[in-house]
Formats: sequence, C-alpha cells, structure tokens
Amino acid sequence: PEVKKIAVISGDGIGPEVVAEAERVLKRTEELFGYSFETEHALFGGIAIDEKGTPLPEETLSVCKNADAVLLGAVGGPKWDSNPKELRPETGLLGIRKALGLFSNLRPAVVFDCLKDASTLKPEVLEGTDLMVVRELTGGIYFGDKFRRQGEHGEEAVDTCVYNVAEVERIVRQAFEIAQKRRKKLASVDKANVLETSRLWREVVISVAADYPDVELEHVLVDNCAMQLLRRPASFDVIVTENMFGDILSDEAAMLTGSIGMLASASMGEGAFGLYEPVHGSAPDIAGQNLANPIATILSLAMMLRLTFGYADAADAIEAAVAQVLNEGHRTSDIAVDKSKAVGTREMGNLIVAAI
Amino acid sequence: PEVKKIAVISGDGIGPEVVAEAERVLKRTEELFGYSFETEHALFGGIAIDEKGTPLPEETLSVCKNADAVLLGAVGGPKWDSNPKELRPETGLLGIRKALGLFSNLRPAVVFDCLKDASTLKPEVLEGTDLMVVRELTGGIYFGDKFRRQGEHGEEAVDTCVYNVAEVERIVRQAFEIAQKRRKKLASVDKANVLETSRLWREVVISVAADYPDVELEHVLVDNCAMQLLRRPASFDVIVTENMFGDILSDEAAMLTGSIGMLASASMGEGAFGLYEPVHGSAPDIAGQNLANPIATILSLAMMLRLTFGYADAADAIEAAVAQVLNEGHRTSDIAVDKSKAVGTREMGNLIVAAI
Ligand SMILES: CC(C)[C@H](C(=O)O)[C@@H](O)C(=O)O
Ligand SMILES: CC(C)[C@H](C(=O)O)[C@@H](O)C(=O)O
Repeated sequence: PEVKKIAVISGDGIGPEVVAEAERVLKRTEELFGYSFETEHALFGGIAIDEKGTPLPEETLSVCKNADAVLLGAVGGPKWDSNPKELRPETGLLGIRKALGLFSNLRPAVVFDCLKDASTLKPEVLEGTDLMVVRELTGGIYFGDKFRRQGEHGEEAVDTCVYNVAEVERIVRQAFEIAQKRRKKLASVDKANVLETSRLWREVVISVAADYPDVELEHVLVDNCAMQLLRRPASFDVIVTENMFGDILSDEAAMLTGSIGMLASASMGEGAFGLYEPVHGSAPDIAGQNLANPIATILSLAMMLRLTFGYADAADAIEAAVAQVLNEGHRTSDIAVDKSKAVGTREMGNLIVAAI
Repeated sequence: PEVKKIAVISGDGIGPEVVAEAERVLKRTEELFGYSFETEHALFGGIAIDEKGTPLPEETLSVCKNADAVLLGAVGGPKWDSNPKELRPETGLLGIRKALGLFSNLRPAVVFDCLKDASTLKPEVLEGTDLMVVRELTGGIYFGDKFRRQGEHGEEAVDTCVYNVAEVERIVRQAFEIAQKRRKKLASVDKANVLETSRLWREVVISVAADYPDVELEHVLVDNCAMQLLRRPASFDVIVTENMFGDILSDEAAMLTGSIGMLASASMGEGAFGLYEPVHGSAPDIAGQNLANPIATILSLAMMLRLTFGYADAADAIEAAVAQVLNEGHRTSDIAVDKSKAVGTREMGNLIVAAI
C-alpha cells in the first residue's frame, strides 16, 4: 500500500509519553490492516526553544509540510511562560497554524459513559451530549494587525479583527458538510448585533445555507451560546464560529462534558491535511511519571486515520478498543475513582494495543 | 431630605410590569425611611422606535442626564429584530451606555437558596457561589471602528478593538475596590497570549495591584475562565474583564447560578451615577399577562439605593423583604415548582412591599 507520512511532534510535559503510546497504536494498525506509515519526529514548542532558540524551527515546518498529517502531543509549561513573545510556545502554535493553513479546528465534545459523573453538570442535563465545535483558526482578531500607539488619552493598544467572504465561506461550508454527516443541525455563533465581522459572517452563512437545505440552521449570539451550552448541551449538534469565540466556547463545551482529559481535536488545512492533538495541555506537574492518560492522543490519531487517510476501519477499531478497555474498568489515575487501582500511561497503551 | 431624581425607562415586553412593581417598592421606602424621590418616565428601545422613530430619543437622554440614576426594565423583541441597525433596540443600548459614560457593568451572580435546584450544575459544585463580574462597558471591540472594504480577496469586514491605559485603569481600580469590600479576591481575565489589548490590560492590572496589596490577584486566560467558571464557580469572588469577554462570561456566570430570572445589574458612570436593570430580557411571550417575575428589577432598585444614593438601610430592607417572601414559599410561575400555586407579578410586588 501507499506509504503515508506522519510528522510526529511530541512537544513538552507529558507530550512525549502520550505520543509514544499513540505511535504504538499506529504500528498495531499497520500490522492488522496492512497500512503503511512513515513517521518523522520534529521539535516544537518549549523543547524547540531550549534546543533551537525558536518555538517553530524551519526544519520542523518542512517536516510537517512534507507529511500528510501531523500528530502533536502538547506544548508549553511555566518554564517558558515569562519569555518574550517570540520565545513562547503559543507563538509557535499560532505560527504553525498559519504556516500550514490550518483554518478549521474540529473539537468534538462527547461524554464518556464512565466519566459522566466527573462533570459538574447534572447527569440528566448531560445525557446525550455529543457536539462538535468547528472553529475558524487562521483569521479574526488572532491574526489581524496588533500594535501600540499614542492616542489622545495616552498609550493605547489596538487589535484588529478581519474576515473576508472567502474565509468565512470555507469554514462554514465545512461545518455544513460535517452537520450533514451527523444529526443535521448547525448553530452558527456570532455577535451580529454589535460586530461588522459578525454581520458579514451571518450574511455568508445565510447564503451558503441555500446549498444545504437538509441542515437545520440557527443563529445564536455568542453570549447566548455561552448560556445555552450550560442549559441544553444535548440539543447542539455542530457549532460553527470564528476564532476568538471558538476558543472560548470550545473550551466551555469540553469542560462541561467532564471528559476533558479524553477529548481529541483536529486542525484541518486544504484538502485532507490535518494536525491532530489532544485537547488537554502539557501537564508538566505529572510529566515523566507514567501517570498521563494517553487516550485523548490515541483518539486524535483515530481522527487522523479517519479524516486525513480515510481509513475508517482502523479508526473504528481504535475507538472500539478504547471503549472496550474503559468498559473493562481500566483507568489512568486522572479518571480513576479508586486511584490505587489506576494503571499507568504505558499499561493503558498496552491494553488498547491488545484490544484493537 | 434632598429629593433624588430617578429616570424610569420601562421599555418593552415585560419591562413596564416589572418596573411598576419596583416603583411601588420605591414609594414604600420613601414612607418608611423618609427618603424622597422624583421619578420621570422616558421612552427607550422598541417602544421609542415605534413612537419616536429612534431607539434613543434626545429627550430620553436628557431625562437620564438630568437624573441621579436610571431604572431600566427591558428592551427589544422579535418585532424589531430585522430592522436596520439604527432602528434596533440594542443600538439604543450601546448608545445610552456611551452617552451616559457607563463604563462599568456590575453583574453579581449569586445562587438563591430556593433556586439552587434550578441550576444545571450539581448543587455541591454550586454551593457557596457568590461572584461579581465587573465588565468594561464603553471600550474595546464594541466601540472601535467597524467597516467593510475591498481587500485582496474580495469583500472584507473589520472591527477594531482599542483600549487605552486610562480606560483600563479606571475599571480595574473599581474592581479592586469592590474586591476589598468582598472576599478580597480578584481574577483579571484577558487573552494576553494573543491580544495586544490584553497585554496592555495585564500591564495595567499589575501596576494598579500595587495599591491593593490586601487583594489576592490572579490572571486567568479567557478560555480557561470559561472552563473554571464551570469547574469551581464558588472559588471566584470578583472577576474583571474587557467588554466582549465580559459579555460572554457574565452570561455564562449568570446561567450557572440557575437564578437568571432573579439577577440584578448596575452600569456605573463617573461618580455615583448608574443605570440599573434586571439581567433577564423583555420576554415578549409573557408580556402583559401578570406572569413576569419582578424580583430582578426590585433587586436592581436595591442596588441603586445602595450604590448611587448610599441608602444602605433601605437597600438592606428590600433585600431582606425579597428573601423573606421567598422563604415563605411565594413564587412567580417562572420559579414555581407547583405552577398552580404561583403568584402573579402584581401579587409578588404586594408581598414584597408588605414585607419591607
Ligand atoms: C495557546 C493559545 C494561543 C491557543 C488559542 O487561543 O488558540 C489555545 O488556547 C487553543 O485553543 O489552542
Ligand atoms: C444587546 C447587546 C448589544 C448587549 C451587549 O452585548 O452588551 C447585551 O448582550 C448585554 O450584555 O447587555
């Protein structure tokens, strides 16, 4: 079979440990399904700052550009938090999104049965929650001009939020298409009663909607959406929104599931190219102790196999293996009720590899 | 005693009904405490669009400017939702904030004992939640330049987010002072890892903090705050943030209390001038049916008496009367478990007036 190239970025904190387990899962799918992958590792984030003096070295970018997909562990940590902007891990994150054209961030928020009590929401409210936030990732206030200037009243700071029709149309079409494959409901979130970019956003959504008559569309103001996610999470299917609102709402949605340590994400570029990473952070406090939960990274790998490579059989098998291992009662300490019975990162990886 | 002037804006939907009850409470405090108020009514919002052709008529503005404080019911409704921008109730809202210099929006989010089961959060998570969001209200992306233009890639929309040092300092000082009178904890929310305005914001917070060494300060990124509000709502005391983030987070905070129909708010200008209004909307579906809950408006009046006029005795008495009436088991239908025993808007007003 064709050899697929995957750039692997372990990153910081627990990144290397969780990525290592995902790589073992990847190997197992090669054996079982006859697929063939070639992985190339690259430095990114804090470790790249330490070893190369920049969070996003040129070679890392070319390794990624050469690949069909990128698997990312986690980046960042207190060690680099007070660095100047150019030497911060998140500057690398924004840089890689822009450089790879990753315009669409897919953030599924699902409730794992074994974790439904971990949520701060009542189980009856959470029941049936299975939504996907589609966040625009390379435009808006994140990437507009930013500067300081002397104004009439002294020093001021400026951020600019810009969206053009094509940028909005691209992400909105993708969201409609995702909704078509799910429960056929799309909530477009904006602040059209205040922002010009939101008015443009809404116009584009309305015009694109004509091509997807089978998808039920609602427009929700961002403040109202922050409330409705709490009030009726199960009623949402796909939520599409701009970069800044998506940052806030996707994290709110993830937290309300109670499953944040288990959630996967994909950042998609043109075609099928994508960068896949767990939603959780680098957790430096537990790094290197065989304590981290590798499931979110393994599920991110499953997303890659499904979305970039179209290997639905392998993706299904990985997701089923994770469900089986959880159903059998195995837990890493972050999700264990009885911590004394928790398994380590490596053991969880073993269990999932064996269950595929 | 000195006669205090209050501009009364009933607005749309249930506005007139709930404001009428608050006015009766106001009368009762005159009788009991010897204060003296003069009220003047003015048109605003949808009704002003219908009767005067603009959501914020000049005379309304001068009635407000002439007064010491403004009491507002609620504005808006589907009737005006598809109007052009200048003829929309929310345009009046933004206009009145700017014209009256209401730079600080105070949004207490408290859990009412009788409503703690109404929240979608687990009661044990909610336990002890009593926080105040201090939202900057006349700056940021709400009031920066907004326009369309032809860009390289076709039509684009632009919003500009601007903050100067003085604007940030003013609201941050107020937040520190509020925290000093509460549990002495302040969370400043920004997105300093991405936005220049947030970096300015954080610099100002750090420099102002030196004057309030007794207040414990934390900086929280906005996406993280959206999560932490869900995870540990009771751990927050005062949250201060810029206009757009405050819009989203104050609504999220309100919703998680489960008490949204009971929450008051104040929008403060220079000195003690303030506009007071319930957090809930105009609820056109139940307007004019004696079904609306007047408590949020009555509690907004109590905030006015406390913050603008310094009449703590009257404010305390109103708040105690509300608590007593609720403890006695009286409920309007929005908060009644047994709807058949619910009292109407007018009866709830009567009960509270009698209990003062
Ligand atoms: C680290 C930060 C720049 C980033 C963002 O705001 O996009 C993060 O919060 C995320 O959501 O991936
Ligand atoms: C109606 C709208 C313009 C307004 C805002 O965004 O400020 C509202 O959501 C609020 O919070 O008072």
